[in-house]
Amino acid sequence: MNESAVMHEPESKYCFATDKNTVCLRLRISKSDAPEKVEVIYGGKYTYALKQFAAEMKRVSGGRLFDYYTVKLKLDDVRFVYVFKITENGKTYYYSEDGLTEKFDYQLSYYNCFQYAYINECDIIKPIKWMQNAVFYQIFIERFNIGDKDKDLSYINLKWGDIPDPKSFAGGDLKGVTQKLNYLYSLGVNTIYLTPVFKSVSNHKYDISDYYTVDEHFGGKAALKELVETAHSMGMRVVLDAVFNHCSENLDKFQDVKKNGRKSKYYDWFIIESDKPFKYECFSSCTYMPKLNTSNPEVRKYLCDISTYWIKELDIDGWRLDVSDEVSHEFWRDMRRAVKGVKSDALLLGENWHDANQYLRGDQFDAIMNYAFTKACLDYFAFGEFNAGRFADKLNELLMRNTDTVNGMMLNLLDSHDTDRFLTRVKGKVDKLESAVALLFFYTGAPCIYYGTENAMEGGYDPDCRRTFDWSQENKDTHLKGLIKFLAGLKKTDDFAQAELEIKSCGDLVIAKRRGDKKTYTLILNGGGDAAVNVTDPAICLNYSGNKLFKDGFLIEIKDKEETQ
Amino acid sequence: MNESAVMHEPESKYCFATDKNTVCLRLRISKSDAPEKVEVIYGGKYTYALKQFAAEMKRVSGGRLFDYYTVKLKLDDVRFVYVFKITENGKTYYYSEDGLTEKFDYQLSYYNCFQYAYINECDIIKPIKWMQNAVFYQIFIERFNIGDKDKDLSYINLKWGDIPDPKSFAGGDLKGVTQKLNYLYSLGVNTIYLTPVFKSVSNHKYDISDYYTVDEHFGGKAALKELVETAHSMGMRVVLDAVFNHCSENLDKFQDVKKNGRKSKYYDWFIIESDKPFKYECFSSCTYMPKLNTSNPEVRKYLCDISTYWIKELDIDGWRLDVSDEVSHEFWRDMRRAVKGVKSDALLLGENWHDANQYLRGDQFDAIMNYAFTKACLDYFAFGEFNAGRFADKLNELLMRNTDTVNGMMLNLLDSHDTDRFLTRVKGKVDKLESAVALLFFYTGAPCIYYGTENAMEGGYDPDCRRTFDWSQENKDTHLKGLIKFLAGLKKTDDFAQAELEIKSCGDLVIAKRRGDKKTYTLILNGGGDAAVNVTDPAICLNYSGNKLFKDGFLIEIKDKEETQ
Repeated sequence: MNESAVMHEPESKYCFATDKNTVCLRLRISKSDAPEKVEVIYGGKYTYALKQFAAEMKRVSGGRLFDYYTVKLKLDDVRFVYVFKITENGKTYYYSEDGLTEKFDYQLSYYNCFQYAYINECDIIKPIKWMQNAVFYQIFIERFNIGDKDKDLSYINLKWGDIPDPKSFAGGDLKGVTQKLNYLYSLGVNTIYLTPVFKSVSNHKYDISDYYTVDEHFGGKAALKELVETAHSMGMRVVLDAVFNHCSENLDKFQDVKKNGRKSKYYDWFIIESDKPFKYECFSSCTYMPKLNTSNPEVRKYLCDISTYWIKELDIDGWRLDVSDEVSHEFWRDMRRAVKGVKSDALLLGENWHDANQYLRGDQFDAIMNYAFTKACLDYFAFGEFNAGRFADKLNELLMRNTDTVNGMMLNLLDSHDTDRFLTRVKGKVDKLESAVALLFFYTGAPCIYYGTENAMEGGYDPDCRRTFDWSQENKDTHLKGLIKFLAGLKKTDDFAQAELEIKSCGDLVIAKRRGDKKTYTLILNGGGDAAVNVTDPAICLNYSGNKLFKDGFLIEIKDKEETQ
Repeated sequence: MNESAVMHEPESKYCFATDKNTVCLRLRISKSDAPEKVEVIYGGKYTYALKQFAAEMKRVSGGRLFDYYTVKLKLDDVRFVYVFKITENGKTYYYSEDGLTEKFDYQLSYYNCFQYAYINECDIIKPIKWMQNAVFYQIFIERFNIGDKDKDLSYINLKWGDIPDPKSFAGGDLKGVTQKLNYLYSLGVNTIYLTPVFKSVSNHKYDISDYYTVDEHFGGKAALKELVETAHSMGMRVVLDAVFNHCSENLDKFQDVKKNGRKSKYYDWFIIESDKPFKYECFSSCTYMPKLNTSNPEVRKYLCDISTYWIKELDIDGWRLDVSDEVSHEFWRDMRRAVKGVKSDALLLGENWHDANQYLRGDQFDAIMNYAFTKACLDYFAFGEFNAGRFADKLNELLMRNTDTVNGMMLNLLDSHDTDRFLTRVKGKVDKLESAVALLFFYTGAPCIYYGTENAMEGGYDPDCRRTFDWSQENKDTHLKGLIKFLAGLKKTDDFAQAELEIKSCGDLVIAKRRGDKKTYTLILNGGGDAAVNVTDPAICLNYSGNKLFKDGFLIEIKDKEETQ
């Protein structure tokens, strides 16, 4: 065996509980190994020397280098201890804390077996039930729709339809969103994720000067209340953007420090590098966005109070957490407790662009924006970095970064207000966008559509990805819109949503298969290559040998349940 | 390169901060790889595409399969992002979140570089300064010394010197410890770790019926106060045993549940499996020790209050945490905040026998009892499982389980009240015990001597490892006692304590070298083999070619500082 590849870690993504007596295990091995049998030999912590149970594990793909053996166990004794038993070429290996050995002494196992010594209920990572069927739609409010035509429009400096610059105001507001809830509902969307709504002088409002006031240009608190209530009445949810890494220089606390220096009681709310000249940590190099010091318990309390206030006041359904990777873990632990304490199924969604496993162990976020998925799609559909095999491998790899529970809550996206639009990255090829959208819905987690994607909206990097929505297309039926509606409909069925995902490649094709209890859903992508499709094994690729798969195309097939081979 | 072996994970033992602008990195590679050069290419999160810095990394042994490249970096911009650059056989590889690649695009690095996006002060794992020079001595109070001869002695049923059974009472008490502080001080001990002291009907007192009362047989609160005050006046510290996984069935809360069933307000303080017959979760199979439900916030508060009460009342120096692996992570997070809030350098030491990395990330314990070290010593000195090479490998492996900061606070031990005595495991061979004790002091972390070890005390598993202390040996000078005094003296010098450790094998010898700023301290062990010493490379093994190294023997050499090769 390739011993260096073997990997397991208790109380981690390799071993996690899904309820008070169920654990899921993963054992990583090299893709080049082919054991005849892999078992977990387990028992109770205090009886293991006397009595062991065995369960066979099932192989799943983990990407380019590794495969995983997995099993889900129902336990009688939740003081769970175990080792792995691997049979390869007729030889038996044990894998324990001591690594791979040819024998294992159960009498001394209290020193070196693996263990999840007790499944305490409060440590279990809990799924948010509604996330299973969620279809997100991200709205950059300023550019979506002007709802209130009676407001003072004098701040608007961009004509709707013109290309924005960083300082543009086009006039979009919350009433504009509320007015279009029916449109979004008919598109299949059931969860709205809004960029920040609180008082701020900018168009994006990531520089907040008052966390307790909804911005006047957006319609104030009443407009937000109406939006949330209307959405809820339609069975839709609303997630707000929590900008807690930094604030605006106009926040009263920061102004107090600026004025009173070390005498200010808010001096330690920020990270002041020098008094003269006045220098402080800020977001990126934006001095108008001073960083909040979440190492200070007072700041943590201040922000926790804000996070619960809006849930208690307006019953919002969760928070997307801006620049969450730069904020302290201690704060996220506080915020999780505060938020879940007032609304247990409120979503906490980090903006971590990288592997965020340290934040996704049950004590901080529920999930993150899955920019690693975004990048994989770009590498396949846009950059030509991945062929079908590498793409399938990467998609499988990403599913091994976190527990299944967390994977089910990841926000999968193709683009956002912080990236080029996907369609622009694929040079305007709507076929490719459609393929990617289909994958977005098939992949484990919740799909998120950036506003305007359904209209094949283009745009480069910020501010170009924040163009105004083209409402002239509202009633136009297109293949892309039809596809989104169809996929959103699928996602809302439990059979599809709860189905197990398998991704593999076959020649130049990527195949994503979801095996539900009732149906098997298959997506075939031919989206990365410049060559025409070359089905090397038509038997595996279903029965499409008679069909013509277009370059940059996809096929979706739904059949009655098919047994796992 | 052996790609499957390469491993790195940000914000983990592979990447951790030691102060607000210092990070330590580890990159794991296969032992069979021999790169010409390994570098970290790093920069600031918002400037990385434009400007990168390079630092070369240094190879250290990580055991049998892996080696590690390490580096410590002082950062200007603590929004730290990085990739590794490995040159082997003239070929260059980059190692990022995308694994090993032959090129790396800094322009798109925001998708796939590694990052520690901001070092927040409150997330840094802080060392406890006094642990660096700590020499622990664990006392099973009941069997150490009778101090109060005037108390009611009628409960005593074991004659001092006789072999105990599980129900024996020999009469040891806290005054007995206080009276022997001078003895312990002269042995070189500066930290006393006591088994539980609170009200309990058993001799071990792991079944506590009142956490606010020091047991009467031990002398009550006054005796504990006197012990702590006397110890402090001598510059010694006292660590108590926190039994929070379970309590005694006599605890008033449990009695209330037993009496009132579901009507009891304490019903959810325990984990009741059925009302009729009355069944509940307990420690092991001991129904007299019901498990406390730390998923319940009320229980967490109750136990946190106890943990801070004794610090505030008597200024104790920390807690050893009994059966800590079965208690919820949420509780340990609460307890850490509570305890560090009243005494920032109080020790929190888990009783986890296994890899406890999930508890040692800065939010829960400072360190654990290092039973994996114990097991390695047994495999080498007692069981014949390890030769010198495997033993050195294992000792190096264990240092890679946690951050350097945590390693510096590990409680290294050869035995305890929960194991056979080490001397009995090595069949009474004092030479082997002495070798192991020398290693105990040389290894990274704090050494802990189980009471009586200095007298070459023997004993099998509980209750035999809890024999009465033989005070007739108090004034006898032995080689073993002299060795402990010498080593404790070394440990109290900062030059030795702060020295960098390197462990390797050379033929049948194990060599532990600590390179201090002033001196180099070398320990050579020949403790595992049945064969006579066979120095295959005398040059590496210092200048002992002229000396005779005994079987089961050791040598310590202290020389002026020697440069790292």
